[in-house]
Amino acid sequence: MSVLIIGSTALDSIRTPHSENPRLLGGSASHAAVAASFFTPVRLVGVVGDDFPKRYMNLYQRHGIDLAGLQILPGKTFHWSGEYELNMDNRRTLLTELGVFETFTPTLPKTHQSSPYVLLANIAPSLQSHVLDQMRRPKFVVADTMDLWLNIALHDVLALLKRVDAFVLNESEAHQLTERYNMLHAAREIHKLGPRYVIIKKGHNGAMLSGPSGVFLAPAYPLDCVVDPTGAGDSFVGGMMGYLAATGGPVEKKIRRATIYGSVVASFCCEGFGLTRITRVKRRDIDRRVRELERLVRW
Amino acid sequence: MSVLIIGSTALDSIRTPHSENPRLLGGSASHAAVAASFFTPVRLVGVVGDDFPKRYMNLYQRHGIDLAGLQILPGKTFHWSGEYELNMDNRRTLLTELGVFETFTPTLPKTHQSSPYVLLANIAPSLQSHVLDQMRRPKFVVADTMDLWLNIALHDVLALLKRVDAFVLNESEAHQLTERYNMLHAAREIHKLGPRYVIIKKGHNGAMLSGPSGVFLAPAYPLDCVVDPTGAGDSFVGGMMGYLAATGGPVEKKIRRATIYGSVVASFCCEGFGLTRITRVKRRDIDRRVRELERLVRW
Repeated sequence: MSVLIIGSTALDSIRTPHSENPRLLGGSASHAAVAASFFTPVRLVGVVGDDFPKRYMNLYQRHGIDLAGLQILPGKTFHWSGEYELNMDNRRTLLTELGVFETFTPTLPKTHQSSPYVLLANIAPSLQSHVLDQMRRPKFVVADTMDLWLNIALHDVLALLKRVDAFVLNESEAHQLTERYNMLHAAREIHKLGPRYVIIKKGHNGAMLSGPSGVFLAPAYPLDCVVDPTGAGDSFVGGMMGYLAATGGPVEKKIRRATIYGSVVASFCCEGFGLTRITRVKRRDIDRRVRELERLVRW
Repeated sequence: MSVLIIGSTALDSIRTPHSENPRLLGGSASHAAVAASFFTPVRLVGVVGDDFPKRYMNLYQRHGIDLAGLQILPGKTFHWSGEYELNMDNRRTLLTELGVFETFTPTLPKTHQSSPYVLLANIAPSLQSHVLDQMRRPKFVVADTMDLWLNIALHDVLALLKRVDAFVLNESEAHQLTERYNMLHAAREIHKLGPRYVIIKKGHNGAMLSGPSGVFLAPAYPLDCVVDPTGAGDSFVGGMMGYLAATGGPVEKKIRRATIYGSVVASFCCEGFGLTRITRVKRRDIDRRVRELERLVRW
């Protein structure tokens, strides 16, 4: 089954101690859509400006991503610029130019309104809710977020949480939202806010899934070389949703394996700048790395 | 088979945001010995002063720990005092009184010299080497360390590394020793210094084992309530060595499961101040938690 993905579609300029990479294809929806596309058809909802490079349109299309929901507006594409420190964990934002994003209102084509799987990738929570308003009884809705929205739009985040099946956030965001240091406690608090599933991302330490049948500790695939972690979290949730949508059936039976697939797709994302590495990956590479990860945690 | 454990035997005064606990039984060897005692007979080598409480001698004895190698000298027992922040990760040392430890030279009773399994728990690396000098062809030697020794006795650490089968340290120590942020790279560098096995502890994120047949990612048992993490690393390596010594046979076949047992024993350690929780644990509690951990990581 297809998955609908709404989020940011951006140009990312990424600086690391070793290199500078201007105007890569980025944004939460781009990363999540490419990640999901390995498993299932994807419908992308977003906005770009009329400066958006044709080659990136081609990239989406090569991944079979349905662009009927991608608005192209006069003006500039959202541009983000950031810099990583040597440890590749600490990141600082150098620049944010919203461009056409400033006035973006996602409007779903009629065909998209009955998508069974919905991924509300990182974007303002009011826009995530606005998309949900247009959906007809989706089967499974996942929302991602970032610290910015917890800071400036907490009320909107809380309203959204009542309407989603799963919520994805990282450790520091979980602490920020719940004031709990212990991630079991944080997950419990977030469940009370609505979602049946809570997924707390821990970067290279994997992720913790909390759901109706308890906790699952998902490992991260250990990487020999992290080139650029930008979009790893989006790839994780995109891969997870793609896998869930592809396999269908009861979510509870698939979600553990789905987080493993998400984790592995995210590992490929980190091995190149922007989407450069992941767009050269084949489904069989992902399956191979999942099997390898199985061996890395078996005792 | 029995395991010989040399390390510090101390009184720990531990302060957390919620409580103050003076003069608990502590020290790397105490934690490691109690942890190992669930699996196999333990021979403790250390030193205490004549102020060492009788009840702590009884505690060792209740765990069947052979004290023939424990020196009791006139003077004060090593006393350490530390304070944890609310997140229970950040710790600062308030006080260190070496007491009889200052002039300690471990001398092994003849019976101890042929112990097949040797755990050099955290103590000055020159003393760890001095113990090895007295051993007759041990089967498997593991050394633990701390940042202090990397700072003030690096030469001794490097000399020791050439003589041990396995080296245990935490992430920040691995970075300090190798200047690598990536723990796969750090492990590789440490292998070059001598040990066949490198175990990098990551606190509540588990541990990474690197050995002849590759990498193993050991999860940590997720705790609902961390009361006092002091000694968790010592319990981890103690439990691991106890399990290895108990099962015997080729280390390579057992070491993954051994790190899981270590991880679970460490989880019990964290649930009470000092040794208060772990000394109330039975072997069946450990086995139950290992089975639970298996379920937490299965997909």
